[in-house]
Amino acid sequence: MVNKSGDVIASAVTNLDLHDISRAAKTYGVKSFYVVTPLKDQSELVKRIISHWTHGAGATYNPKRRQALELIRIKESLEGAIDEIRSGSAADEAPKTVVTSARNSRRVIGFSKLRRLLQNGKPYLLIFGTAWGLSDDLISGADYTLEPVRGVADYNHLSVRSAAAVILDRLVGRGKMDG
Amino acid sequence: MVNKSGDVIASAVTNLDLHDISRAAKTYGVKSFYVVTPLKDQSELVKRIISHWTHGAGATYNPKRRQALELIRIKESLEGAIDEIRSGSAADEAPKTVVTSARNSRRVIGFSKLRRLLQNGKPYLLIFGTAWGLSDDLISGADYTLEPVRGVADYNHLSVRSAAAVILDRLVGRGKMDG
Repeated sequence: MVNKSGDVIASAVTNLDLHDISRAAKTYGVKSFYVVTPLKDQSELVKRIISHWTHGAGATYNPKRRQALELIRIKESLEGAIDEIRSGSAADEAPKTVVTSARNSRRVIGFSKLRRLLQNGKPYLLIFGTAWGLSDDLISGADYTLEPVRGVADYNHLSVRSAAAVILDRLVGRGKMDG
Repeated sequence: MVNKSGDVIASAVTNLDLHDISRAAKTYGVKSFYVVTPLKDQSELVKRIISHWTHGAGATYNPKRRQALELIRIKESLEGAIDEIRSGSAADEAPKTVVTSARNSRRVIGFSKLRRLLQNGKPYLLIFGTAWGLSDDLISGADYTLEPVRGVADYNHLSVRSAAAVILDRLVGRGKMDG
């Protein structure tokens, strides 16, 4: 990630990011939600939160949360996530990586085109950033950069939780064309 | 609102609901974001949060947050919000009320139809619930019930933050048809 000044940092994990993004992932049929952090205390924190809702009191109180949080995998690096997806794929194939960024970029794939590609049965890894976004290295190393979500104004500052839900809805949601 | 057992309650305001929904509102050109709570301590809490980001240290640290949180109005009741929208409208016209619900209902308006209606220049008030959703009285009293957001599975449990962003994107977002 980068911070406000553009320095590369490891950002803290936000509890509600885990809940909101895993619920969106489950709603839109995503297979796994990888939380990537090199920070040991952050990965321990994530494990405790997941455990509360999948095995602890939360699992009984709200089983829908369990179903969502069960999608979370924790990795120290993006490469770790890519390796695991590859070894779980039928053809031992690395996922195509798609970065999401509010900034405009030169190599951009549109929502409709990616929506069609996602139907080809191959693995894809959508990458979201927190703090002030993904680092330039990560963006330039990805297979695709997804076009930015636009609203109606030049203001474009959705939270990562909101952006993830909107992007999944555009890529795999249904019901848009009902009258 | 209703709780898990279906009792009508006043739910607590979540800090991130204010941030996420106001940022989505600003991104999608919404005029005002009404936070409705009959609880005095909750409305005081909301005022303090808004003040931090619009006048306090937060306003300097992150001016984009200020622009979003400035859209928030606090009301004790839904009627208070409706009255204020009416008195601010050109034709002294009450807004059409649209409830959003994950449950299916008999009288439902689709996303495309509401998207077209929103272009007629008249005021509309989209109503989102927290906790276990809006009360039946509130749903049955509204002018429209918006069709539920559907993903790909029968799991449909987006957070109110995610649902608000997805619904605004479906109703006024752009860029869907780009290749």
